[in-house]
Amino acid sequence: MSDNPTLIREKLDQAAAILQEQQVDSWLTFVRETSLTPDPCLDLILGMDMVWQSAFIVTRTGERIAIVGHHDAENVKATGGYTTVKTYVQGIRDELVRILVELNPSQIALNYSESDVAADGLGHGLYRLLERYLADTDLSSCFISAEAIVNALRGRKSPDELARIRTAIATTQSIFRAVGSFARHGMTELQIANYAHQLASERGLGTAWDWDYCPTVSCGPDSPVGHGGPTDRYTVQPGTLMHMDFGIKENGYCADLQRVWYVPRNEQDIPPEAVTRGFEAARSALLAGFKALKPGALGWEVDAAARQTLVNAGYPEYEHAFGHHVGQQAHDGATVLGPRWERYGQTPFGVIEAGNVFAIELGVAVEGYGYIGLEENVVVGKDGAQWLSDPQTEIWLL
Amino acid sequence: MSDNPTLIREKLDQAAAILQEQQVDSWLTFVRETSLTPDPCLDLILGMDMVWQSAFIVTRTGERIAIVGHHDAENVKATGGYTTVKTYVQGIRDELVRILVELNPSQIALNYSESDVAADGLGHGLYRLLERYLADTDLSSCFISAEAIVNALRGRKSPDELARIRTAIATTQSIFRAVGSFARHGMTELQIANYAHQLASERGLGTAWDWDYCPTVSCGPDSPVGHGGPTDRYTVQPGTLMHMDFGIKENGYCADLQRVWYVPRNEQDIPPEAVTRGFEAARSALLAGFKALKPGALGWEVDAAARQTLVNAGYPEYEHAFGHHVGQQAHDGATVLGPRWERYGQTPFGVIEAGNVFAIELGVAVEGYGYIGLEENVVVGKDGAQWLSDPQTEIWLL
Repeated sequence: MSDNPTLIREKLDQAAAILQEQQVDSWLTFVRETSLTPDPCLDLILGMDMVWQSAFIVTRTGERIAIVGHHDAENVKATGGYTTVKTYVQGIRDELVRILVELNPSQIALNYSESDVAADGLGHGLYRLLERYLADTDLSSCFISAEAIVNALRGRKSPDELARIRTAIATTQSIFRAVGSFARHGMTELQIANYAHQLASERGLGTAWDWDYCPTVSCGPDSPVGHGGPTDRYTVQPGTLMHMDFGIKENGYCADLQRVWYVPRNEQDIPPEAVTRGFEAARSALLAGFKALKPGALGWEVDAAARQTLVNAGYPEYEHAFGHHVGQQAHDGATVLGPRWERYGQTPFGVIEAGNVFAIELGVAVEGYGYIGLEENVVVGKDGAQWLSDPQTEIWLL
Repeated sequence: MSDNPTLIREKLDQAAAILQEQQVDSWLTFVRETSLTPDPCLDLILGMDMVWQSAFIVTRTGERIAIVGHHDAENVKATGGYTTVKTYVQGIRDELVRILVELNPSQIALNYSESDVAADGLGHGLYRLLERYLADTDLSSCFISAEAIVNALRGRKSPDELARIRTAIATTQSIFRAVGSFARHGMTELQIANYAHQLASERGLGTAWDWDYCPTVSCGPDSPVGHGGPTDRYTVQPGTLMHMDFGIKENGYCADLQRVWYVPRNEQDIPPEAVTRGFEAARSALLAGFKALKPGALGWEVDAAARQTLVNAGYPEYEHAFGHHVGQQAHDGATVLGPRWERYGQTPFGVIEAGNVFAIELGVAVEGYGYIGLEENVVVGKDGAQWLSDPQTEIWLL
């Protein structure tokens, strides 16, 4: 969780402005025992876990009301983000109903979303409970999904957030370079991953996603690429590729990058033509997506630009989205630069905005050598995307 | 997350037996991007995070079917827990609908619960999406809450689970003892907490709940007791109490204990009568609850036994539940040994079973001295509760 009250207050200010812009009267984030069932938004608007049922309300007029168990009140007040902090002991219902009735909003944007997991922090059981709490009012009929609010709030990075992401990227890149110096013929994927972990731990940092799967390391053509953790099964082998997907989380913000090396057989050995060709195809596709990434574009349009370029070069489509927001989470929710596949729901139909930070990624498998995956982090400016990472422009030699 | 496939298979076997016992045809756990929005049950039945939408189905007849994104398939198969692992690329709907239609269950117990947060892993948005997936069938009408299944599955600890909890308790107790030797007049709560963290880190272990709030340390009468993190504001002061709430997580399982010390002014100084009396009242109330804790009792009855004893002794009621399950989580869901207050929902009405492991806790504030909180961990046997921790029987002197 973020421990920075300044950031919390900044995002709460931003939230009120977004409500005004979207003409939504109120936004309610309703949670309980968030160490078990977190709402990803709490990192933006609270920065701590809640044990009892807790409600956080932001209104279009700028009020920020927290209703929390009495044990939690001091911590919530200490953020300085809330204009009103109400507490309870036995149950939240009376206070919550009283405040909502008093606010009398036309819409209550609620923390659920069919498409955007980062905006879907409300458990279905807790939703049912909320409906029961409000049974004597007609407030349930005001519920709408808060996904558009959360999308904007997560997606529009402040200068402070952007600076934190830049720091995480710089650290991640330095670890990639160190790994390149460390790796030797015969080392296992697990040894490589452990070294990256050691460098992170020495800096007192965690990883951008689950420690056991960050980094993933893939050596050679037989190592499965995906969400598997690194194992002792595959090793750095001359004449093959080594690929790594990794990111550091620093000051609460993530990087998410991929790099690929060719492992030469000897000092004269350069990457074979199939590898160079694969890299160039991947890089051209990445650049096509990069060029398409500008304010006003839709998520799927950016994906399509990259995807089509890769297919035109004779390579198969990648089986994932081209890009995703990066922020407090490696997969930071909101608009996805992805194909209009069922599993992405409405997220590829989102509109790119200035201030968005994305990881853009794709890859090709080269038969007999391994996987070439490229992933860079970019920020969207008024006129288009700008690199935050130093893009990999050629296969690195190990 | 648990990394132990044996445990996963054991719990999946247990789940099938529970379905049989409860006469429920099928149990569906539906999740996505569980690093952002985890379902606490996945630690019991899977032991890893899923990125794409994923469905885990256990049937009364013993089938265990996983439907997961193709990247995740190998990891899920590697658990050995699933009889069938189906994969998809673009969307889960077709495979999910096909399998559910084929199973044709009378009930689909789904991963939501109004009362039990540990059984409420399904986001409301994801629930709506599931309803849309099943719109062409009448399967949505078969949905029931899986809380009774999850309650039994979490609550009935296997011998392996119990052994892990015992280990976590032993480690936690050794850290409490070390803290007692370390603490000196004038040290801040934060210094005490940092030392406990150091001892945990040296052992390569994490804490049972959020690192920043585990331990909580309260020195003297002015330090707020609750969910706040330790600060530099209050220090170990002669003639006052030092209280600590702490637990280690080891091999995936938690301890959750509280200990209290009196800080003598000099070698002759013993706890004043008000402190001793408070301790005895708290201990008597804890023992009353301990005695009431046996198979067949209801959660609230156990709480009432402890609560009434404390009130009869002239102390105010504690403003929380007397007890909660301990397991993979410090607050492990299911039946709560708590009062019939609104915020506990139906959880105090659960029936205690043999094999349940609870943290039981209560406390009294002693004016001018500080907080006396007692918390022990116990397992329910056929004839009643047994201590897992070594109960604190008197105020420790620092």
